[in-house]
Amino acid sequence: MARKIGVIGMGNVGSTVAHDIIAKGLTDELVLIDINEAKVNADALDFADAMANAVSHVNLTVNDYSALKDADVVISAIGNIKLLQGNTSNDRFVELPFTSEQAAMVALNIKESGFNGVLIAITNPCDVITSIYQTMTGLPTNQVIGTGTLLDSARMKRAVGKVFEIDPRSVGGYNLGEHGNSQFTAWSTVSVLGKPITEIAKERAVDFDQLDEIARAGGFTVLHGKNYTNYGIATAAVRLADVVMSDARAELPVSNFRQEYGTYLSYPAIVGKNGIVEALHLDLTEKEAEKLELSAQYIQTRFDETLKNLQNK
Amino acid sequence: MARKIGVIGMGNVGSTVAHDIIAKGLTDELVLIDINEAKVNADALDFADAMANAVSHVNLTVNDYSALKDADVVISAIGNIKLLQGNTSNDRFVELPFTSEQAAMVALNIKESGFNGVLIAITNPCDVITSIYQTMTGLPTNQVIGTGTLLDSARMKRAVGKVFEIDPRSVGGYNLGEHGNSQFTAWSTVSVLGKPITEIAKERAVDFDQLDEIARAGGFTVLHGKNYTNYGIATAAVRLADVVMSDARAELPVSNFRQEYGTYLSYPAIVGKNGIVEALHLDLTEKEAEKLELSAQYIQTRFDETLKNLQNK
Amino acid sequence: MARKIGVIGMGNVGSTVAHDIIAKGLTDELVLIDINEAKVNADALDFADAMANAVSHVNLTVNDYSALKDADVVISAIGNIKLLQGNTSNDRFVELPFTSEQAAMVALNIKESGFNGVLIAITNPCDVITSIYQTMTGLPTNQVIGTGTLLDSARMKRAVGKVFEIDPRSVGGYNLGEHGNSQFTAWSTVSVLGKPITEIAKERAVDFDQLDEIARAGGFTVLHGKNYTNYGIATAAVRLADVVMSDARAELPVSNFRQEYGTYLSYPAIVGKNGIVEALHLDLTEKEAEKLELSAQYIQTRFDETLKNLQNK
Amino acid sequence: MARKIGVIGMGNVGSTVAHDIIAKGLTDELVLIDINEAKVNADALDFADAMANAVSHVNLTVNDYSALKDADVVISAIGNIKLLQGNTSNDRFVELPFTSEQAAMVALNIKESGFNGVLIAITNPCDVITSIYQTMTGLPTNQVIGTGTLLDSARMKRAVGKVFEIDPRSVGGYNLGEHGNSQFTAWSTVSVLGKPITEIAKERAVDFDQLDEIARAGGFTVLHGKNYTNYGIATAAVRLADVVMSDARAELPVSNFRQEYGTYLSYPAIVGKNGIVEALHLDLTEKEAEKLELSAQYIQTRFDETLKNLQNK
Repeated sequence: MARKIGVIGMGNVGSTVAHDIIAKGLTDELVLIDINEAKVNADALDFADAMANAVSHVNLTVNDYSALKDADVVISAIGNIKLLQGNTSNDRFVELPFTSEQAAMVALNIKESGFNGVLIAITNPCDVITSIYQTMTGLPTNQVIGTGTLLDSARMKRAVGKVFEIDPRSVGGYNLGEHGNSQFTAWSTVSVLGKPITEIAKERAVDFDQLDEIARAGGFTVLHGKNYTNYGIATAAVRLADVVMSDARAELPVSNFRQEYGTYLSYPAIVGKNGIVEALHLDLTEKEAEKLELSAQYIQTRFDETLKNLQNK
Repeated sequence: MARKIGVIGMGNVGSTVAHDIIAKGLTDELVLIDINEAKVNADALDFADAMANAVSHVNLTVNDYSALKDADVVISAIGNIKLLQGNTSNDRFVELPFTSEQAAMVALNIKESGFNGVLIAITNPCDVITSIYQTMTGLPTNQVIGTGTLLDSARMKRAVGKVFEIDPRSVGGYNLGEHGNSQFTAWSTVSVLGKPITEIAKERAVDFDQLDEIARAGGFTVLHGKNYTNYGIATAAVRLADVVMSDARAELPVSNFRQEYGTYLSYPAIVGKNGIVEALHLDLTEKEAEKLELSAQYIQTRFDETLKNLQNK
Repeated sequence: MARKIGVIGMGNVGSTVAHDIIAKGLTDELVLIDINEAKVNADALDFADAMANAVSHVNLTVNDYSALKDADVVISAIGNIKLLQGNTSNDRFVELPFTSEQAAMVALNIKESGFNGVLIAITNPCDVITSIYQTMTGLPTNQVIGTGTLLDSARMKRAVGKVFEIDPRSVGGYNLGEHGNSQFTAWSTVSVLGKPITEIAKERAVDFDQLDEIARAGGFTVLHGKNYTNYGIATAAVRLADVVMSDARAELPVSNFRQEYGTYLSYPAIVGKNGIVEALHLDLTEKEAEKLELSAQYIQTRFDETLKNLQNK
Repeated sequence: MARKIGVIGMGNVGSTVAHDIIAKGLTDELVLIDINEAKVNADALDFADAMANAVSHVNLTVNDYSALKDADVVISAIGNIKLLQGNTSNDRFVELPFTSEQAAMVALNIKESGFNGVLIAITNPCDVITSIYQTMTGLPTNQVIGTGTLLDSARMKRAVGKVFEIDPRSVGGYNLGEHGNSQFTAWSTVSVLGKPITEIAKERAVDFDQLDEIARAGGFTVLHGKNYTNYGIATAAVRLADVVMSDARAELPVSNFRQEYGTYLSYPAIVGKNGIVEALHLDLTEKEAEKLELSAQYIQTRFDETLKNLQNK
């Protein structure tokens, strides 16, 4: 049957996601949704203007939630970049009051469509929003995933790759926890040049604090330089969607519901057609486990608050 | 030898062009240049953040004109979208005072680098800016090309494809002249469903005025909906760059110097490693030939003015 | 829903088709079928050995006709290359006694699976085999297509591209009729350098007989040099499958059932998700129309004979 | 500058390598060389027949060693599959008397061309042939690489992926040593589900002998099923070439010259534009180190013999 993907939110991230999906021919049908009708129609027309010079053909549908009924994947890229731009605290939670309400509304529309595929949330704060999507759509937890630290891990790999002068794709390991300020690189999981980086550090100086800072600060460096981030996150989200569509059963650090923490947080998992198909269990150090616990608690607290706020409206 | 591409101007168009080149792995080395250092560094970091999740690897250089010395292709995407946004006349020439000065400066920097590849200008007003680039760099006319009506032709194909319910890639034909208000679809060259569209029009109603309007108005519809256009034009420019890099000798309607008009204007040509490798000669109708003549005169007049202005500074 | 393609026949052509589909990630599930179990299992293992170094992931199923039930596309690449190798007459019909029986058997298996997608026949003699598939599966004619002269047209474009030193993709036009010795280039449909080639021929010498010969003889030149042909035909078939999967509604010269001739033969058509979605009507010259008529009669005669032979068994 | 790749040997492997390079548009110019002129010309024509339906354009040159002068990469895929087919010992060394002489000849031709890029040897027995190429061309050791156990590692990942039901690309680790019967999986380097497989083996039964056997036997299973192997090895070789062309500095287990063993053998290394750009040093177990030592001795002995034989002719 034809592949079908929905992208909700045509901001800088959503439109880049949609463009990449079209450019790679990852889907046969693409549903684009945004409350700003002029924007989503403009993007759809711009995509259509690309097609005579493109390699793949994709059929577009605009602002029709009912078209999501038989979609394989729906990607939420809604956001309000203006809130983040005025933000000197570098905290993705300034977006929460806006995005949580929007996500709740979008979730109800998705639910009403009868959608039963995999929902991928990019929207920040990612873990809380992913939780809201799962709660509000009523989809099984395995079918709702946040891009989470797939991007932070890429940033860590970029930082490590730069220092060791190697391809970031040749760096193994994960950033864990909240896609936010409490996230951290689990250095015990990172490998490079055929060894755990912790072993390498015994042979040559490795400044973990600096690497950690580069990885965490990356998003805000981009944000302050151009007022938004899109290419890194879009590439991560499209890769995740591709893994789901092709049922690759690939291992990716994404935001998924972890029973032992009772919350969504980023932790590597095997991802396939049904979303999260197998949970992993890392041998973290005690200190890493503590950081993860703190990160989990933070997400859970913010989610509980947010849900209460939504229910009081 | 390694492929090398330069992209100058990291606005909405330039950054999309750079992203597409990276995502497709079209080059080994990519040089990114912009006077806004924070923006170009932010984009470069955002691209680097994508690489751990990407299929191809590309090495990036930022703001180093000397790196263009051995580039195969340099793409100019400089512009000032703010000038166009406030513009109710839908005329790309509001950008000219800004972009012509910028292009002249960039051209001198390119010249100084010793660059001897193919220069592709996206910057508007495209034909005048392409002329400025050729004049100021002193490169042979065949090595300087504007994207011109490659985009307008795509818009025409989108319009025709929509009406006939077929793939825009299955529509043949060209828009000619200025990439601006004097451009037009040469309907005598358009084919669809295995026939000249003018033959089809004898069998069923075809509203050429409406199709023409859809094609010409496309850019501004997108512009007013999202305040800029990027995906259609970037896809066209990247296709053109690919044709040059691979020495494909493909036929494309782009802005090239036509001896008989003494100016740059869009007219199909065979494009390869040395840029324009063969000029085409269409059998236009008398009316089309007149329109092209007028379009050529308009471009030439504006170019002469612009050159005079630049020289008086 | 996931994309699913079946490939039947793991000879040189079928395995190249399967490999290309995997390498491009065109499907999520790929069903491979061959009566030679050792061969199809060896190919499946070889494909699986490629996947750790590949860009896309594809799930493989081997020799299970029932898996075709919900396939989008099934490609028949069965054949007996040995029959063709010993053949000094350069006639694809030496394969017919073998392939017609095989195709009839395969068709019944496909029918039994409940398959209701688009069946693409590469198997030679292509038009007769396509007819057999349609008859035996009972699928609507629009859902059964032969690759036909999509390859011959590519060969014509290669020949024309070589003579004019341009990209074959910049040559327009079609070869028509039987994918066999009665096929011909409809020169009235061929365009190059922005004009009908017949116009070009008034300006400079164009040896149509030579071009025609190069196009027709291509397959056997390859065949005698390496004892089979695979890359050209596989690329054509995979492009056709992609057009169907993505519902591109692209114009392609393929073998489709033409009411006015009462037979399958190659003639351009608009191809999409349901196979042939619109028939084209070319303005052929009288001589071309005659050739096509003859070609149609030849196909029909051979098909009638073949059907009779099959029914007598 | 344009990318240029040479492929020497148009057997099942070489032609698949060439086809993949064309299909992916990995090069601008491709030089095809084979002593069987009819075969290499047939393949070149078959590739050209694909181009009208292809996404990329590649210019082809046939049987011209001098064209390799400015190539970035030359891939040796020469072989004599007939020798291997009659071989019941499953030993790639039956090819050696033939391939060593051929490789020596080819090496001299490459040297004479002035080639100074990276030479990738697929030809078996891979490590000995790679050594011969390095010796005979006089290229620095870092510029001559064998595909080695890049394929065996892929087979190991396929086997592990199958048992754990995950994407082979989510399995880490290497096969080391000879691309032949003395190679082995260094299980201490293999990771899966976020842990060393040796840790996993403490939690659930993992039959390393069986996995090892599946990986080693893979090639011969394919060989006996279809009389040659091509897709797995071609995909590995093309990935390696891509890593070199794009200067990705990726980590790959390939045959490279290891000073401490005084021979070529497969061991992970960082690969970039200059070939091997950094040697890795794994923390192998004592047993693994012993196996590697034995494998190295075996390769060295066979290389010394072979070199002597070549010099005596």
